[in-house]
Amino acid sequence: MNILVLNCGSSSVKFQLLDMTTERVLAKGIVERIGAVQARFKYETEEKRIEKEPPDVHDHAEAIGVILDQLTDAQEGVLGSVEEIEAVGHRVVHGGEHLSESMLIDDRVHKVLEECIPLAPLHNPANISGIDATSRALPHVPQVGVFDTAFHQTIPRMAFLYALPAWLYEKYRLRRYGFHGTSHRYVSQRCAELLGAPIGELKIITCHLGNGASVTAVNGGKSEDTSMGFTPLSGLMMGSRCGDIDPAIPVFLMKNEGFSPGRVDNLLNRRSGIKGLSSDKYIDMRDVEEQYFKNDPLCTEIIEMYAYRVRKYIGAYTAVMSGVDAVVFTGGIGENSSVVRGLVCSPLGYLGLELGRKLNSYAFKPGSGDEGMITKEGSKVSAWVIPTNEELLIARDTKDIVLAVAAR
Amino acid sequence: MNILVLNCGSSSVKFQLLDMTTERVLAKGIVERIGAVQARFKYETEEKRIEKEPPDVHDHAEAIGVILDQLTDAQEGVLGSVEEIEAVGHRVVHGGEHLSESMLIDDRVHKVLEECIPLAPLHNPANISGIDATSRALPHVPQVGVFDTAFHQTIPRMAFLYALPAWLYEKYRLRRYGFHGTSHRYVSQRCAELLGAPIGELKIITCHLGNGASVTAVNGGKSEDTSMGFTPLSGLMMGSRCGDIDPAIPVFLMKNEGFSPGRVDNLLNRRSGIKGLSSDKYIDMRDVEEQYFKNDPLCTEIIEMYAYRVRKYIGAYTAVMSGVDAVVFTGGIGENSSVVRGLVCSPLGYLGLELGRKLNSYAFKPGSGDEGMITKEGSKVSAWVIPTNEELLIARDTKDIVLAVAAR
Repeated sequence: MNILVLNCGSSSVKFQLLDMTTERVLAKGIVERIGAVQARFKYETEEKRIEKEPPDVHDHAEAIGVILDQLTDAQEGVLGSVEEIEAVGHRVVHGGEHLSESMLIDDRVHKVLEECIPLAPLHNPANISGIDATSRALPHVPQVGVFDTAFHQTIPRMAFLYALPAWLYEKYRLRRYGFHGTSHRYVSQRCAELLGAPIGELKIITCHLGNGASVTAVNGGKSEDTSMGFTPLSGLMMGSRCGDIDPAIPVFLMKNEGFSPGRVDNLLNRRSGIKGLSSDKYIDMRDVEEQYFKNDPLCTEIIEMYAYRVRKYIGAYTAVMSGVDAVVFTGGIGENSSVVRGLVCSPLGYLGLELGRKLNSYAFKPGSGDEGMITKEGSKVSAWVIPTNEELLIARDTKDIVLAVAAR
Repeated sequence: MNILVLNCGSSSVKFQLLDMTTERVLAKGIVERIGAVQARFKYETEEKRIEKEPPDVHDHAEAIGVILDQLTDAQEGVLGSVEEIEAVGHRVVHGGEHLSESMLIDDRVHKVLEECIPLAPLHNPANISGIDATSRALPHVPQVGVFDTAFHQTIPRMAFLYALPAWLYEKYRLRRYGFHGTSHRYVSQRCAELLGAPIGELKIITCHLGNGASVTAVNGGKSEDTSMGFTPLSGLMMGSRCGDIDPAIPVFLMKNEGFSPGRVDNLLNRRSGIKGLSSDKYIDMRDVEEQYFKNDPLCTEIIEMYAYRVRKYIGAYTAVMSGVDAVVFTGGIGENSSVVRGLVCSPLGYLGLELGRKLNSYAFKPGSGDEGMITKEGSKVSAWVIPTNEELLIARDTKDIVLAVAAR
């Protein structure tokens, strides 16, 4: 069963084609700079890597056309025809309060995604446009939506409500949603497998540390709280996002700098975090870490701030779950920065988490599924590096739903 | 040695006169509604309580006049003349980055307080006006400033900096300051006394839960992190303040409701918290607790939200200090709500904190200095109710500084 996984952003479409009998990736890649003067197309199979500059990629429909043409290309393709694609799974950012699990995209779900546009004005329109383009290109192929917010719909009211006037929740559904749900779900399930214990009995804290970053308390396999909120701005500090700040600061900036709401939004989302602290010198933790090893004081401070905030969330979520069995690191920084992991974990001995220095300094091979424990044998609380694989989980959900629908 | 402690707000002056040989309170009270049509004056000694409506209280100078007249009144006063006041201690909200301990108020300190007005536009002008009025009324009496922010000046950079563009800290000193410092300092010192251990060796988490509320990690007697930030808006949810929210929400309100910055400020500071969640029905936790006992679902939710947020901070600050020896509750809610304390502490068994149900349900007598442990004998982490006494600490600091200056 071949499943195509699509992640449609505002100016890009990422894809992976998986053979779900073996869970093998047949091909993957990305169309970037959609709508720009010249788009770029990267395509990769087990045998080859190709980069092209396809003409006329004005929208998601044309981008999906480029992808399907390549997948069925006589020389470079992996499929005889598009008929061999049995289902399409979409990564969708916002499913609001009504889509609490992956779903076959029918008219009702499509309508809910449109209703969620005010909650994710940048992301949902791109996701919807990708779904519509797929419907036109592959009219008989079932499509499944896998929502970034869905995993967090188990968070209890007392944790998802803000202490704001009640009418704001009534009118706008203004509440904590949380994001990166597919990633937190994938690595927590994988962690339970590695621990050889039923996930229903485990308290796991998952740290997705990428360019965006969030921490989730996964109690018995369910999200109980998460650091991102109404939007992906809150929680940890990130590449260019500020994370948690005093909520009086946006108003302070307007009053004192005369900033418009749009400019404040831009400052907090695109000019803060690692980028802001370094006055635009760095945005990527790899560069910060390189300077950290050269004892650069600014980069030392940035990396310590970053780890400190992760550590505070681990402490808070341990209190939320009344304990913790395992901590998981994933995402580019989580998988690759032994420095960040070390700074986060070293002071957690009070919980019974004993980091293994040698295990933590092992260089996990990126993109290879390389994973493992980084705490000492016998550590009461274990810590793990588990590369996330959102595409695989999307393909699995898609397969399950399509098979269930077919069996009806 | 008689010391007068003054707390000058925008429309009120609170006072206490203490005999510092015995630390006995000779008289205390408040002048309220300064500048309104009719001010109100409450005055209390060990023997009597008086309420008056003094005419012509237009400003802080006239309010202080009312207080001094009363203290030296032939029938109702406790002093023969104002000459018997040997020093005045002022509670000052914001001391910025330069005033990291209590100080004799000289021209330099006065100037720093003026420079801090942009950081505390509502509070510092009232404090300064009280200082100036005192200088005129008691020109030869030394005055000491005790700053709400001072205790938190030991917070390390990585914890006080926000992940915002570096120029904002350079230009505005935009950073975490923290408040309620005098209260956190007082109760952490008192907790060490009760534990019979040197404070330098203790990790204490102090929860000041009043109408405003904050949590502090006190490591070895020093504030290492605190939940209030650049302003007193962040951290816990409070009577009418929202505490931590997604920092994208102020911008969302401006874009979607067309609110001005001032209106957003008003919503977050004065119409949120307990008040907002209850749609203006409640603001006082006592009323919420009363309804909680009648199984009112809204009040149950509010009280659980409140306690949940305190608990998350206790977890986070335990991670900050790599452990905790004691948790202290103070402030109106902390001293009186056994429900809140119970909900906060019950799930903390994983830390070795075992609440004593009977000890926790004991009704501590307000205003009597009644204090005690609420964890079981032998609990690894102890929890305490310790009524705060900011006035006493202000008087002690004032005495120490005045004596040190005199000895020079």
